[in-house]
Amino acid sequence: MLTQEGRASLSDIADLNRLKLELNQLQPVDIGDYVADLPPEQRAIAFRLLNKGQATEVFEYLDQEVREELIGYLHDAQVCQLVEAMRPDDRAELFDELPAGVVRRLIQQLSPVERQATATILGYPEGTAGRVMTTEYVRMRQGLTVSQALSKIRLNDQDKETVYYAYVTDDNRKLVQVVSLRQLVFSLPDALIKDIASDRVLKVRTDTAQEEVAQLMKRYDLLALPVVDREDRLVGIITIDDVIDILEEEATEDIQRLAGVGNGDESSLSRPLEKLRNRLPWLLGIMALYIGASSAIAPFQKTIAAVPVLAVIMPLFSNTGGTVGIQALTVTIRSLGVGEVTPQDTLKILKKELLAGVGAALALGLTMVLLALIWTPPQERWVALVAGFVMAANTLVAVTLGTLLPMGLKRLKLDPALVSGPLVTTMLDTIGFILFLTLITITLRFVSP
Amino acid sequence: MLTQEGRASLSDIADLNRLKLELNQLQPVDIGDYVADLPPEQRAIAFRLLNKGQATEVFEYLDQEVREELIGYLHDAQVCQLVEAMRPDDRAELFDELPAGVVRRLIQQLSPVERQATATILGYPEGTAGRVMTTEYVRMRQGLTVSQALSKIRLNDQDKETVYYAYVTDDNRKLVQVVSLRQLVFSLPDALIKDIASDRVLKVRTDTAQEEVAQLMKRYDLLALPVVDREDRLVGIITIDDVIDILEEEATEDIQRLAGVGNGDESSLSRPLEKLRNRLPWLLGIMALYIGASSAIAPFQKTIAAVPVLAVIMPLFSNTGGTVGIQALTVTIRSLGVGEVTPQDTLKILKKELLAGVGAALALGLTMVLLALIWTPPQERWVALVAGFVMAANTLVAVTLGTLLPMGLKRLKLDPALVSGPLVTTMLDTIGFILFLTLITITLRFVSP
Repeated sequence: MLTQEGRASLSDIADLNRLKLELNQLQPVDIGDYVADLPPEQRAIAFRLLNKGQATEVFEYLDQEVREELIGYLHDAQVCQLVEAMRPDDRAELFDELPAGVVRRLIQQLSPVERQATATILGYPEGTAGRVMTTEYVRMRQGLTVSQALSKIRLNDQDKETVYYAYVTDDNRKLVQVVSLRQLVFSLPDALIKDIASDRVLKVRTDTAQEEVAQLMKRYDLLALPVVDREDRLVGIITIDDVIDILEEEATEDIQRLAGVGNGDESSLSRPLEKLRNRLPWLLGIMALYIGASSAIAPFQKTIAAVPVLAVIMPLFSNTGGTVGIQALTVTIRSLGVGEVTPQDTLKILKKELLAGVGAALALGLTMVLLALIWTPPQERWVALVAGFVMAANTLVAVTLGTLLPMGLKRLKLDPALVSGPLVTTMLDTIGFILFLTLITITLRFVSP
Repeated sequence: MLTQEGRASLSDIADLNRLKLELNQLQPVDIGDYVADLPPEQRAIAFRLLNKGQATEVFEYLDQEVREELIGYLHDAQVCQLVEAMRPDDRAELFDELPAGVVRRLIQQLSPVERQATATILGYPEGTAGRVMTTEYVRMRQGLTVSQALSKIRLNDQDKETVYYAYVTDDNRKLVQVVSLRQLVFSLPDALIKDIASDRVLKVRTDTAQEEVAQLMKRYDLLALPVVDREDRLVGIITIDDVIDILEEEATEDIQRLAGVGNGDESSLSRPLEKLRNRLPWLLGIMALYIGASSAIAPFQKTIAAVPVLAVIMPLFSNTGGTVGIQALTVTIRSLGVGEVTPQDTLKILKKELLAGVGAALALGLTMVLLALIWTPPQERWVALVAGFVMAANTLVAVTLGTLLPMGLKRLKLDPALVSGPLVTTMLDTIGFILFLTLITITLRFVSP
């Protein structure tokens, strides 16, 4: 690892040479971390110490914010070299985030081949297979023998992102077979590709959703998956490292949406303004919902005045129903997210959840009765029974909502995590309060005539 | 896909033959789904239609529950064959979950080599590299040439889980280099392995935590990672498909713990009793915490009686502070989980969170004042100001706790997701209530002497 002195030394030529040697010992991703930790004006200096191949790789590992700043500090020619050498999918991702003016200038300076590859990828909507694929892959014709195929790979495909699968196409570039490098290595040199390659090729269309791609590759343990257009022509492949990123993105989205964090792509390192934009809408939404709750409680002020112990018992409802709902919601959303269940399983799952819910309802209801008895004076013991009943009923409502809401959204082909946790908690708290106060008010008429 | 008739036909021999043909068209994971959907007593019939290789693969894809039932329906000899043919890591996972008596019987019937491999893996604690690795990998000596290495792989390693990396060891089985199949294919046949292989071998120890393994492989885009013992001797490798499972497990754990769901490994399909065991402790914990809150509120009954509008305003506090806390908590835990930040970044992150928090505090405090003014009578307008102040203060406390609690746990090498969402919500609600009632009580002394 680089020493602290290494970091302080970017103004001295002897030190620069030493730093260059040290950087050469590191993996690109580690150099990236080193560069990102430097003050912005020193990043370009460190970056110029890298050779061309290194620079491209390191650049691909940098955060978007750091990349943008770095581009500002580098000469135009350097930036063009970097961008030209990037893989088409990474380049498309970069362009996606740079200001439109910069992108236009950079695209004009790309070679025709690279410009075409980038344009192809940028032509597909975000979140689809077309947008995350790379257009660099190993392609071959059926007529080759194994030894011809291996020679072809040695000659042409040294720079491909993966050479572990070769895709066999016909004269119209239609994808017909797939063969792994493993199969090539284990086959006789004279065998024909068309005889050893597999006809059952798993593939996706350019408009397939990226989650679906990731689930497929996970399910079938694939290292790469081909992407075809509407005419079944091969246009790109998606590799396993992209799948890991997609699965992490999707998990982050689920976890953050459940917590009421906007788009679900926030990081601890996001800018404060972005954090505020992500989070404030749900917070104000909750307060708005509570206007409803408060307005609903206002008419019961007479009831509260008649039975003052209610003010002490009511906090016991807070959060409990909401938490039951969030537990069911979270388990359902995650099981949908990892592909364990589908909306077809709704009834089976609801049954399991309700069985567990009845257990929880009994335990929580009973606890509520016991706790409420601590504060209720002898003539108001019945209040504890009502509180227990409301707690149990609210638990069952919570489990049902927590299961059915995400399943319903999924069936409508919407994101199940759109029902955020705060929404469910707020709903259930409100239902609990109102149910409790209503039942108490009704019972009061019979108890104290 | 299999037709509905295919499913109904397991009693007729002609149909069985047809089913066998149909099953042969499917991928093992799809056959697994088909078998799992059958009634338990028919699963063994369908399973016996598969050839030996297929049966092993399909078995590895079945859920634990289905596997256990299936083992009950199969003959002993069949079960032994299946278990003998499994990969050592998958076999260890199966044994982990079967009743101890069954495992003892099965282990006795394994061949010495397979018994040894299984015992090795089962000897490492759950959640470590040793437990998830496979003991089947490609190993070679430094002295070989590329063409000798390729011949060796063709002869000996056809059945290895991956042949895309070969690990080079010295006479003491110490790991010294690594070479990829890609490098072998692109090198001259006479080149020496020791010249083309890389000396900088990323590796982990058997006791490295599985999350750390997954983060490393993700960071360096590896398809496999070698595992060594304390003496640096190679004992196994971990492959990318295991990493995907680990990352999903860890994400599930984070998301469920945040929601207050026990161990964080629940599925929608888990048994109701397991669900109840996972969820009830946090629910009862929340109620226990609210005994504290209720007891703290009880002394303020006089204040509430003096200013009845408090009962209407107080629900507006519910959940808002808690949600602010959960938002910060979730973003922090997720950023730690994907390895974006470490406890060293605590101050940097707290600054960003507090900047966003000040914005949220102003917006929420102001909204609170406006909403509270709706219900407060003219002589109690000051209550709205106090409510707004408490809301703003609570927001800042929430952001701070949501950031510092998980960072602190991580620094203590504990799971940051141990601070569950319900705990934070409950704490913040309570802090909000008590702060509000205390300030109101104090102000009352000055306002109405």
